[in-house]
Amino acid sequence: MAKKTQTDRYAARGVSAGKEEVHAAVDKLDQGVFKGAFCKITEDYLTGSKKKCNVIHSDGSGTKSIIAYLYFKETGDASVFRGISQDSIVMNIDDLLCIGAVERILLSNTVNRNAKNFTGDALAQLILGSEDFLAKLRKLGVKIYSGGGETADVGDLTGAVVVDSCAVAVMERKNVITGANIKPNLAIVGLSSAGKAKYEDCENSGIGSNGLTSARHDILSPYYRKKYPETYDSNTDKKLVYCGPYKFEDKLEGSNMTIAQALLSPTRTYAPVIMKLIKKYPKLIKGLVHCSGGGQTKCVRFGKGVHFVKDNLMPIPPIFKAIQKASKTTDKEMFEVYNMGHRMEVYCNMDDAKKVIAVAKSFGIDAAVVGRTEKSKREDGKNHVTIVHEGKTIEYGPRD
Amino acid sequence: MAKKTQTDRYAARGVSAGKEEVHAAVDKLDQGVFKGAFCKITEDYLTGSKKKCNVIHSDGSGTKSIIAYLYFKETGDASVFRGISQDSIVMNIDDLLCIGAVERILLSNTVNRNAKNFTGDALAQLILGSEDFLAKLRKLGVKIYSGGGETADVGDLTGAVVVDSCAVAVMERKNVITGANIKPNLAIVGLSSAGKAKYEDCENSGIGSNGLTSARHDILSPYYRKKYPETYDSNTDKKLVYCGPYKFEDKLEGSNMTIAQALLSPTRTYAPVIMKLIKKYPKLIKGLVHCSGGGQTKCVRFGKGVHFVKDNLMPIPPIFKAIQKASKTTDKEMFEVYNMGHRMEVYCNMDDAKKVIAVAKSFGIDAAVVGRTEKSKREDGKNHVTIVHEGKTIEYGPRD
Repeated sequence: MAKKTQTDRYAARGVSAGKEEVHAAVDKLDQGVFKGAFCKITEDYLTGSKKKCNVIHSDGSGTKSIIAYLYFKETGDASVFRGISQDSIVMNIDDLLCIGAVERILLSNTVNRNAKNFTGDALAQLILGSEDFLAKLRKLGVKIYSGGGETADVGDLTGAVVVDSCAVAVMERKNVITGANIKPNLAIVGLSSAGKAKYEDCENSGIGSNGLTSARHDILSPYYRKKYPETYDSNTDKKLVYCGPYKFEDKLEGSNMTIAQALLSPTRTYAPVIMKLIKKYPKLIKGLVHCSGGGQTKCVRFGKGVHFVKDNLMPIPPIFKAIQKASKTTDKEMFEVYNMGHRMEVYCNMDDAKKVIAVAKSFGIDAAVVGRTEKSKREDGKNHVTIVHEGKTIEYGPRD
Repeated sequence: MAKKTQTDRYAARGVSAGKEEVHAAVDKLDQGVFKGAFCKITEDYLTGSKKKCNVIHSDGSGTKSIIAYLYFKETGDASVFRGISQDSIVMNIDDLLCIGAVERILLSNTVNRNAKNFTGDALAQLILGSEDFLAKLRKLGVKIYSGGGETADVGDLTGAVVVDSCAVAVMERKNVITGANIKPNLAIVGLSSAGKAKYEDCENSGIGSNGLTSARHDILSPYYRKKYPETYDSNTDKKLVYCGPYKFEDKLEGSNMTIAQALLSPTRTYAPVIMKLIKKYPKLIKGLVHCSGGGQTKCVRFGKGVHFVKDNLMPIPPIFKAIQKASKTTDKEMFEVYNMGHRMEVYCNMDDAKKVIAVAKSFGIDAAVVGRTEKSKREDGKNHVTIVHEGKTIEYGPRD
């Protein structure tokens, strides 16, 4: 029998890693006023100014909420959902960062839950956790405000809880960062996803909120499969459901964290770093890429005629090593699904890279020139990515 | 054994009809700048004007998407999800109408799906259906625009599809409609939820997007239970799952619709009617109530010291009669869950009621003075509701 790739495993678990169908449907739609930007940007429908534009962005914590749910059921500790609030919010604001939207953000949360399994105390933690995280961001200078939210009891649609957020901003068009300036001969500065930023309360594993369906099943023990049937698709081949070696309390090798702490580590926001960069060096940033879905290959969608060469990546955090070991995923696929060490990329002139690194380090976040942009080597001139990892070269073609 | 109330049946199905826990958590939060308004309204975070304010509103089609999913699986007709797009959008914009937000609305959609069951063709219909419905609204003068959306593959969180939307507006504070002007001695004009508005393509059953968990299970036959286990919570007592008499193709008694057509009837928007009312008679509206969750008792949350007397309700549409017959729900509970004939209420001076009715009828929507506001008869002065139905008087106390 042919070995299943990670993509096959994704499909078997009800996830289409490449989202080809989604892109096929969405690509027919209006692409907004700044084509090639990280987020869709529209004309200023909200206030009608020709100098301004709007962004409305939706994303959520995805299946990471299931890990919190399992932890909550095992320990009774509802406060675990505070991290899920942060995950859902950061998946929005760190996308917004990439277009330069760092001020005056209005946010709403949507919780779809099974009221029998996800009870009122857990809901309260989710709601209050969201408020607390926004207050913390405001203290850090990020002007983000909650405008409310919705909780829907949809017990027939979910056995646990689905957490989503929507973030909105009205921007000056002149302040928008697009992908258009991602050209050859730039430095790619990676900002670490792991460690402990000065504005974080504890160490971050680097996991973020992507690839958690795979990570959860490949890492966690069949113990959870037997005990929590409401947390997986009953049609998935049982061999792919919670088929990993670990329980929550197990130590993550190479770290001081438990498996639970590592998997549930709230997604880091880079908002304070990017804000400071924009304010201190207004012209420095040529482009920003949030390495969310698509991991280290996400960049391939931005700029034109670019070969992204990443040959000096940051150390791979232990959680990704554990996932790879448990799932036997190839290096190539790991870099396509997970951030593998840095979740934000700053594109700038080579000379400016040290400024970016210094700003990141001023927040306690490690950073490095992980690579550079060159001219596309493809005959069709399309973007492509090369990752050099432990002496091996891995090539990725364009995504479209 | 004591007869189970509809609320008990709701709880058994993973739905907390009263959402007490949600209100308990949310009530601790900032209530916004216009307390007692239908939606939370914040200061103008988005542009910083003191004369303006913001609203960001999230809601979705709830479990109505499951009915569309069943229909899609039975017939292969993915276009049924176009109606679900409309449901999700209208659940937002008709709430926004109630604060007078009828212009310059920016909208985003979020789809959480099981990619194995809810396939790409269905997703495309959902996305394109949303675009088409917004284009239709714009033709009707409602300036609403899509700013994008998100599709998440979360097969372990849902067996089918969860559809949500988020709508945002920047308003002039002077144009905001709050609940503060809902006082005694006003007419309550109900705008019919059923029939065919001039801007609708086919007859509307009046169902809207509330109470669909109950309606689905109480109306639909065990045939669907056996065939589609992914569409209900496996922990629910099977006696409460798809325990009704009908299949999709059956006729709805007293109508020209099938059960499928009636259950899937897209939620009507009243936006064109309310827009025309506001433009033609700027001072007429004293308050607006969207009879969504809470049905005919939703009004009790608005105004102060008010007794809502509804003694001249519109005819009850056949779909609600069928639900009541199948579920053996009391009259009292039916009015608390479903709109029962009108989903939008305009509060105005008695003399102005005929103007409201004429505007509604100009769009082909039936309307009537369904009742009036009086001074609260409770010792504590709190709001309460009286419904007179077929000669019987039903009393409802305050919700908080």
